Amino acid sequence: MREQFQEELDAVSSTLVDMAGLVKTAMQNATTALLTADLALAEKVIADDLIIDEIQHELDAKTINLIARQSPVATDLRTLVTSLRMSADLERMGDLAHHIAKSARMRYPATAVPPELSLTIEEMGRVCVSIIEKVALVLKNRDTDRALEVEKDDDAIDSLHRKIIQTLLDPSWQHGIETAIDMTLLGRYYERCADHAVSIARRVYFLVTGTYASDKA
Amino acid sequence: MREQFQEELDAVSSTLVDMAGLVKTAMQNATTALLTADLALAEKVIADDLIIDEIQHELDAKTINLIARQSPVATDLRTLVTSLRMSADLERMGDLAHHIAKSARMRYPATAVPPELSLTIEEMGRVCVSIIEKVALVLKNRDTDRALEVEKDDDAIDSLHRKIIQTLLDPSWQHGIETAIDMTLLGRYYERCADHAVSIARRVYFLVTGTYASDKA
Repeated sequence: MREQFQEELDAVSSTLVDMAGLVKTAMQNATTALLTADLALAEKVIADDLIIDEIQHELDAKTINLIARQSPVATDLRTLVTSLRMSADLERMGDLAHHIAKSARMRYPATAVPPELSLTIEEMGRVCVSIIEKVALVLKNRDTDRALEVEKDDDAIDSLHRKIIQTLLDPSWQHGIETAIDMTLLGRYYERCADHAVSIARRVYFLVTGTYASDKA
Repeated sequence: MREQFQEELDAVSSTLVDMAGLVKTAMQNATTALLTADLALAEKVIADDLIIDEIQHELDAKTINLIARQSPVATDLRTLVTSLRMSADLERMGDLAHHIAKSARMRYPATAVPPELSLTIEEMGRVCVSIIEKVALVLKNRDTDRALEVEKDDDAIDSLHRKIIQTLLDPSWQHGIETAIDMTLLGRYYERCADHAVSIARRVYFLVTGTYASDKA
């Protein structure tokens, strides 16, 4: 009985790792589609978001069913409740990749990002993808050191976000209001994606140590 | 035993209603602070957000404790899991009011919103507050008719959001990029707040009827 329960707990955890993998690919593809005006890739990210939503839906149903059948208490219950929260974070991260892909599609055949911001957006995408990769490892190995790293990577995202805003406000900005609106929202999407990643890292940290990561970071 | 459990379930539900009341006040005050450059009111919204966070924290601990002690199944378990999700929605709505108040504080002593957008923002705040009021009633009375109304009010928010973007893109716009960035983010905060309200209304609708509101709206 206990052994089967442990297998089911492991399956929940492994589905979260799979979701993180899909979100990572979505964010990678969304950024490439955005920077290269790749319509087919943007459409793929948009379509694949439904797969992430579906996995979350099934995972949550399984998790609730597991709580109902096994009446877990203490750590097991906390693990399952935390899974529900982390699947919601991952689903939302998928939505944000979807939003970025929609921005690429909306401006096609033009490139949504003007030349002076393409390196910054590329870097934001790269850091965001690396954060999601780390979160997958945090989920897989309950790796608390890596969970603390995610907090620091998030500072890099915030600093890139400020760089975008500075570029928009520079008197040399010549791409007008519409592109400024796009860039403001894109910066916000990457920032929110990283926020959800931090939230997952903190949840795992708390599950493993019983203390809050923010006290150590 | 069952009677005590029912009382505890009712207490969870009533705390959610209280949270909705606090979020409504926060959104109302944040909008007033934004439109009238009222620094003291903005500070109050920012400080009071901690109270909402604290209530969520305590409510979630109580809810998990209730699951652990009572091992609920079926509807009771679904109700408690849904409460955890709705408290997260309400907490996030509080954060968004907090963001709006911070925008008011950042531009003080100037008014963050330029004259040609103040009616639109006022209307967005009004509709958003009315949605939160309805969500409080949906939570209190499990009122599915009102849950469906929330979907329609959300369309009004989306249309006001489009109006903001149109105003920013109009050739007559003369407040520059910085104000355009502020307005883009403010529009997004109201829109996301309404999205979370819709999400709560849908969750209650599903709990009561077992079907999805989006099929009826």
